[in-house]
Amino acid sequence: MSFNTFGRVLRFTTFGESHGPAIGAVVDGCPPRLDLSEADIQPFLDKRRPGQSRFTTQRQEPDQVRILSGVFEGRTTGTPIGLLIDNVDQRSKDYSEVAAAYRPGHADYAYDAKYGFRDYRGGGRSSARETAMRVAAGAVARKVIPEVRIRAWVEQIGHHPILYSRFDESEIDNNAFFSPDPVAAEQWEKVIDTARKDGSSLGAVVVCEAYGVPAGWGAPLYAKLDSELASGMMSINAVKGVEIGDGFAAALATGEGNADPMRPGTPGAGPQFLANHAGGIAGGISTGQPVRVRVAFKPTSSILTPVETITRDGEATEIRTRGRHDPCVGIRGVPVVEAMMALVLADQKLLHRAQCG
Amino acid sequence: MSFNTFGRVLRFTTFGESHGPAIGAVVDGCPPRLDLSEADIQPFLDKRRPGQSRFTTQRQEPDQVRILSGVFEGRTTGTPIGLLIDNVDQRSKDYSEVAAAYRPGHADYAYDAKYGFRDYRGGGRSSARETAMRVAAGAVARKVIPEVRIRAWVEQIGHHPILYSRFDESEIDNNAFFSPDPVAAEQWEKVIDTARKDGSSLGAVVVCEAYGVPAGWGAPLYAKLDSELASGMMSINAVKGVEIGDGFAAALATGEGNADPMRPGTPGAGPQFLANHAGGIAGGISTGQPVRVRVAFKPTSSILTPVETITRDGEATEIRTRGRHDPCVGIRGVPVVEAMMALVLADQKLLHRAQCG
Amino acid sequence: MSFNTFGRVLRFTTFGESHGPAIGAVVDGCPPRLDLSEADIQPFLDKRRPGQSRFTTQRQEPDQVRILSGVFEGRTTGTPIGLLIDNVDQRSKDYSEVAAAYRPGHADYAYDAKYGFRDYRGGGRSSARETAMRVAAGAVARKVIPEVRIRAWVEQIGHHPILYSRFDESEIDNNAFFSPDPVAAEQWEKVIDTARKDGSSLGAVVVCEAYGVPAGWGAPLYAKLDSELASGMMSINAVKGVEIGDGFAAALATGEGNADPMRPGTPGAGPQFLANHAGGIAGGISTGQPVRVRVAFKPTSSILTPVETITRDGEATEIRTRGRHDPCVGIRGVPVVEAMMALVLADQKLLHRAQCG
Amino acid sequence: MSFNTFGRVLRFTTFGESHGPAIGAVVDGCPPRLDLSEADIQPFLDKRRPGQSRFTTQRQEPDQVRILSGVFEGRTTGTPIGLLIDNVDQRSKDYSEVAAAYRPGHADYAYDAKYGFRDYRGGGRSSARETAMRVAAGAVARKVIPEVRIRAWVEQIGHHPILYSRFDESEIDNNAFFSPDPVAAEQWEKVIDTARKDGSSLGAVVVCEAYGVPAGWGAPLYAKLDSELASGMMSINAVKGVEIGDGFAAALATGEGNADPMRPGTPGAGPQFLANHAGGIAGGISTGQPVRVRVAFKPTSSILTPVETITRDGEATEIRTRGRHDPCVGIRGVPVVEAMMALVLADQKLLHRAQCG
Repeated sequence: MSFNTFGRVLRFTTFGESHGPAIGAVVDGCPPRLDLSEADIQPFLDKRRPGQSRFTTQRQEPDQVRILSGVFEGRTTGTPIGLLIDNVDQRSKDYSEVAAAYRPGHADYAYDAKYGFRDYRGGGRSSARETAMRVAAGAVARKVIPEVRIRAWVEQIGHHPILYSRFDESEIDNNAFFSPDPVAAEQWEKVIDTARKDGSSLGAVVVCEAYGVPAGWGAPLYAKLDSELASGMMSINAVKGVEIGDGFAAALATGEGNADPMRPGTPGAGPQFLANHAGGIAGGISTGQPVRVRVAFKPTSSILTPVETITRDGEATEIRTRGRHDPCVGIRGVPVVEAMMALVLADQKLLHRAQCG
Repeated sequence: MSFNTFGRVLRFTTFGESHGPAIGAVVDGCPPRLDLSEADIQPFLDKRRPGQSRFTTQRQEPDQVRILSGVFEGRTTGTPIGLLIDNVDQRSKDYSEVAAAYRPGHADYAYDAKYGFRDYRGGGRSSARETAMRVAAGAVARKVIPEVRIRAWVEQIGHHPILYSRFDESEIDNNAFFSPDPVAAEQWEKVIDTARKDGSSLGAVVVCEAYGVPAGWGAPLYAKLDSELASGMMSINAVKGVEIGDGFAAALATGEGNADPMRPGTPGAGPQFLANHAGGIAGGISTGQPVRVRVAFKPTSSILTPVETITRDGEATEIRTRGRHDPCVGIRGVPVVEAMMALVLADQKLLHRAQCG
Repeated sequence: MSFNTFGRVLRFTTFGESHGPAIGAVVDGCPPRLDLSEADIQPFLDKRRPGQSRFTTQRQEPDQVRILSGVFEGRTTGTPIGLLIDNVDQRSKDYSEVAAAYRPGHADYAYDAKYGFRDYRGGGRSSARETAMRVAAGAVARKVIPEVRIRAWVEQIGHHPILYSRFDESEIDNNAFFSPDPVAAEQWEKVIDTARKDGSSLGAVVVCEAYGVPAGWGAPLYAKLDSELASGMMSINAVKGVEIGDGFAAALATGEGNADPMRPGTPGAGPQFLANHAGGIAGGISTGQPVRVRVAFKPTSSILTPVETITRDGEATEIRTRGRHDPCVGIRGVPVVEAMMALVLADQKLLHRAQCG
Repeated sequence: MSFNTFGRVLRFTTFGESHGPAIGAVVDGCPPRLDLSEADIQPFLDKRRPGQSRFTTQRQEPDQVRILSGVFEGRTTGTPIGLLIDNVDQRSKDYSEVAAAYRPGHADYAYDAKYGFRDYRGGGRSSARETAMRVAAGAVARKVIPEVRIRAWVEQIGHHPILYSRFDESEIDNNAFFSPDPVAAEQWEKVIDTARKDGSSLGAVVVCEAYGVPAGWGAPLYAKLDSELASGMMSINAVKGVEIGDGFAAALATGEGNADPMRPGTPGAGPQFLANHAGGIAGGISTGQPVRVRVAFKPTSSILTPVETITRDGEATEIRTRGRHDPCVGIRGVPVVEAMMALVLADQKLLHRAQCG
């Protein structure tokens, strides 16, 4: 089934393809009386929008969101919030070759195997364009969790990581790469330029932290906070790995090295933790420390370098993906990762309130 | 909310604590007329069972499963399958200290923060004992996907990985560590013995592959096959990271290096793939290649080495977790990871059948 | 929570208020490769559309549906189908009085009690306008169950029932009341005219039958076919009662009088039933007989006759609901009841296919 | 699919057949720190238990419930509550004839049509025995809504209604029929005795009211309070009709006759309603008036009078259902209807809390 819905009580459903008339989302279960207008959503869409620098795809999509329902006199009513973005820059001619042959690494072959049929224009439903609606829904979710501050950045592009000794959060929005390290940003500029000239592409790692999450959100088992985050992040296009806290590095640690010792905190403020290897989650439930996720994006599969493939009829051929593509999709993944963090946390906040009052 | 249910149409729900009278599961939505008896489930439980070697906890739990419903004359009826395991070896006295102070790395503090109250005996609901029911449910799921063969192994304990040049699948069941590399198994024996003597513990990495999954299972978005696997694996106790295919290594790759080129396959058998960086999943849908997941387990937080912590009343103290604990929980995670793979794939098979006939 | 989603694997979600810019729906889980265009949906919307006769509200809404996604080259792709209808005839001025006082029988007071706030224009989310999206989604659902023919009619308006001795299915679309009895239709014309002149309104009973449903759709318990139908029908505005088969009359029957005896049928065609008291459903599962539902609509609460009520501030007042309203909402309920029948059956067909292949 | 789960955040799942070793339920999402022990559940099961008078089936089932999880030191922990009742009185020999031929009105034929196979002992999963678990789960739900008082009674058996002029709530538990009218109870005794002697059975109508439900529980659309109640009630064995408030009588009313006028109430207590035609629900949301549901039970299909039917092989035959059966299943439906009311209201309370704080 498609199951284009995410969340348990704060649920959002998206629809739309890259080259249809519009993409949209329905956010259901939002609490009433929250201030909300398009102006609260648009900045997050602008942050994600392509065409902002030469390091992302050159498609020009204004991505102007409209609120179709669920808001009255500037406040949410508690009824479903319909969100719509018209698709305005659709150049179907760019994608003609894709109809005939499968692009390796893309969903082309898998879609045909599943549905016996696919909308080949711009990746159809599998296009990262859908993530615009996650970003829009995420902006609504942020309204539900005003106590939480969410911040994501690119930690690494290809083999080039940032240095945390140069970490400066205020730099993140000062460059085209969401880099907290201005030196790395300069390096990435060159690396990505090279990749584009070579008809290649690069992977990236995005880190996201949420501050202000109180202890107690989450659940002991299948709706665990970490499990929901893993599901949400892995559902983003091109994501191949998710870590909570130390992630795979924890597998190298010893029990005492991986412990997050506690000391009495300031009165009323929860304990003081001496480390955060757990990424703010223990037993599926938040501990009050920053919630930390690390997400791996593969290099975009849309490259100019020819790759062996087959046609729909099973004949051998080669394919080069022409058109306007991000050399590094991980960069534009930053606001999407933030949105999924917001959506998961807002859902868990409401779930916690349901059960624990 | 607890939300102790996993799956969309093949759904299982578990209940039970480490030190209550029993743990159980309900498997709902299982197709009718499948051969099923306790004998189909018990071997998987025996594989997971503690007390089998000195490298896992010495609790003696026979873990004898009973089928309470949903099976008639040796075949599933299509109605819910109730599964129950009585808890027989409960030494509550081992856990008295846990009632007073929070064990760092455990769910103790988070549970109290959420519920204002917890069953402190043996970790209560957060105990890995719950995973026995996943293994039992997974044995049922395997009946739903006879075309699929699932195989997991330990790839690494602490800093000690296997060598894939020595990989021999038949070795996996010949040692206490699910190691496909007999040399690594010998090494791990020493490493774990040392950790136990030192009152320490070790992390591990588990790899799981599923062979025979046809192209077309999964979904484009929030019920993506990779998203479901991430959710399922991250819901296992002590898991902190999940990778599909190359995972975080894909973030280091270039587009052409990460491509899985295709050639015409033997007639009727789908294309021949020249690589499997994607781990058998593209755009959330299986490609017909082996589905590959990699899972990071943190070292168990139950260690004899004292760790700083606080009491329920917020006073500073130290805690050493006495009792019978796995020095490396990742080892016993192997059958659990296999079970979650089976449960996700069986669910996705039925979902695919619902939509695509 | 709002939970504006209905269905389990064929799921539809609606959004939109009476006086917002648009109403919409997302149909998720639809099988691929079904022929679908706006022309398949519009006739059902036209049937429901107000302003067609003087017996229904005089609002002029063209209710032109647009398919925004999920269809490519005239066929469903298996991805979510976005449907949108712009609201064009919004006369907000008609509803100013409603902002100040609660209309008895409407959701006004309950909404304010729940949300502390409401969109008072035309009933907002509680407007029957939302049912247009059910009708649109129902048209998609019909594509999923081509083997089923669905037919609903008005059986009674106020105290004036049809005579089944005059039942003629071909008459249903020949009058403004969906009456299979042309004599009753003439009578209803007078009765409704009188009610309108008196500033009153009338209740109605709608019957819906589905022919061609094979034996085996449904489930033993909480997803029972009858339970799903009850949920779907009772979710329609103004519905206060639902019966399956003989319904409340069965409570008056004896076991032998209520039995549906079986005889051997023609080979390959299932048994011959000698009666259908059960309405085609036994134990929650279809029997192969026509599925029959009976639905009670209350008289619309929007009447010109003044009714005692209170203001938002709790002061006593009287209210008369001016504006353009159906004197008998049950009439326009006919296509909505058909749509819910189609949606439930299509969902159950896919669920059955998931479990039983 | 089976979908043996009911509820959205307070969810319960049942399993078990009439003649298996046990039946059980899992109640998930229950708030923590509520007092709960078997003694809170058993009285409701005793009320439902067969064998208490000669007017219900003579099977002797102690129906002793055990809490297997989710409760610690007498209080709920917030984790899933496992409930189990062993089946002790299983006379499989009573049901041998059922294996060969289909009992009309029972689920026998439909199950075979769906699953190709069925557990024919005592109706298997379709047995009303499952309702014991709803009653147990309902007892837990009552703990979640201490502000609500729920009361159901039998209003009618066959053609014999109670007189509301003789209504005395304290009488309900003083007779074997849950009759608030002692005169009707005497009459029913004779009527049922006659039915039993004749090998016949009788239908019944059960009414259930909930007092103390505050305004604001429910939802505008598919999770409407009335829609959930309809789904829950219609999922009870033998139920064929559900009404909210005036139900089908509302279809006979005029708008002014069906209005529930409001006047200013005592300060802080909500408005004073002059009538309750709506049954305490408007637009899917509670109004603060008593929530009222009416439920029609068909006569049990298990009768000694022979009925025409067919064998599994399609041959004509006759069947008489021997064994111990309720001549009027509606009577034992009373505690089940109360349980479903409690479960729906508790779920909606938590949902309301999630969204509206």
